[in-house]
Amino acid sequence: MAEVDAERYVEVLRFYARQMALLDRLDLDGYLGTFTEDGVTHHVHHGKKLEGRAAMRAFAEAALPRYRENVPRHWNDHYEIEQDADGTLTVGYCSLVTLTDKEGKVRFESTFAVTDELVRAQGKLLVRLRTLVRDRPAAA
Amino acid sequence: MAEVDAERYVEVLRFYARQMALLDRLDLDGYLGTFTEDGVTHHVHHGKKLEGRAAMRAFAEAALPRYRENVPRHWNDHYEIEQDADGTLTVGYCSLVTLTDKEGKVRFESTFAVTDELVRAQGKLLVRLRTLVRDRPAAA
Amino acid sequence: MAEVDAERYVEVLRFYARQMALLDRLDLDGYLGTFTEDGVTHHVHHGKKLEGRAAMRAFAEAALPRYRENVPRHWNDHYEIEQDADGTLTVGYCSLVTLTDKEGKVRFESTFAVTDELVRAQGKLLVRLRTLVRDRPAAA
Repeated sequence: MAEVDAERYVEVLRFYARQMALLDRLDLDGYLGTFTEDGVTHHVHHGKKLEGRAAMRAFAEAALPRYRENVPRHWNDHYEIEQDADGTLTVGYCSLVTLTDKEGKVRFESTFAVTDELVRAQGKLLVRLRTLVRDRPAAA
Repeated sequence: MAEVDAERYVEVLRFYARQMALLDRLDLDGYLGTFTEDGVTHHVHHGKKLEGRAAMRAFAEAALPRYRENVPRHWNDHYEIEQDADGTLTVGYCSLVTLTDKEGKVRFESTFAVTDELVRAQGKLLVRLRTLVRDRPAAA
Repeated sequence: MAEVDAERYVEVLRFYARQMALLDRLDLDGYLGTFTEDGVTHHVHHGKKLEGRAAMRAFAEAALPRYRENVPRHWNDHYEIEQDADGTLTVGYCSLVTLTDKEGKVRFESTFAVTDELVRAQGKLLVRLRTLVRDRPAAA
């Protein structure tokens, strides 16, 4: 695994800026288009593994009514990016999720550690595997 | 509209780092100096359009007493940056505002989507138009 | 003091991504290894200056039990980076600290302004001095 240079690092920042904007404005087609067709989202804390865009779509559609009543925002920080010999990028970061209701009041979901595997297809970055671990105290 | 390279992307990160520091330490002259003389701040959710530095100053001065009792902090994320043929940058991002009181307790204002038009004058980036939209659920 | 280019700016982003990950996963050895042997952490609001890794270790170990019951996360934003003639970097940023309990509930510590002096040893960046100022309203 090797560190990436500034051009690649910024490309990854741009990728998340766009992907999180699609997610938070509930553009499901746009969001799913940022995963490979066989992409996987692994919610470790739920013991739930969504394999492929169709499974992710079903899961997301079930959550949509709730997000239509509370605007979600994903706040990410501390991207650690490494590149494999074959070009795969492994990106670790932390994420805080806010929900803003119709009065403008902000609530908070948990904080998470996320690890993504990004691959390149036709020049574009796509997520092949996303692993989400909800923060849980060591003493819990 | 074209994507920008790492040098330009980082220049924009530095611009916001400085602008938000000026804003959050209530350095009104410094903050207004990051807008063009005829710069506009459009608070869509209030239906209020502040045209020119003088109008922005009056609006900000009215808010100052409140911010002297609660330190504001603007937390931005997910900068999407595009460049026009004439060099104008369009920057979209989301923003979360905290207020910290004298006991160190943190409260939250709403979350926002912001879109800025940045132009260059004497080599420096300046905001010509800032459009702020408070997050509001689709179902509201 | 001079601005830094994109490669250096991104190097600093990577430094904090790694350092904050070490801190938030309570990897004390890893975290202390990101300071010079004689590094100093100055908590201005406590009037407490921790001089050298040993003093920092004692302070951190006293806080560990609490952080084993609440996962801490440091959310930083707005890095302003300047470089001295001798290569020392001065980095200013703001920081919001969350604590997530075993039910996933998020609480907030105060917000902070942080200023770091980074030096380079054997090619790696290390903190020589960290100054933390808890946000406190002007009117307080």
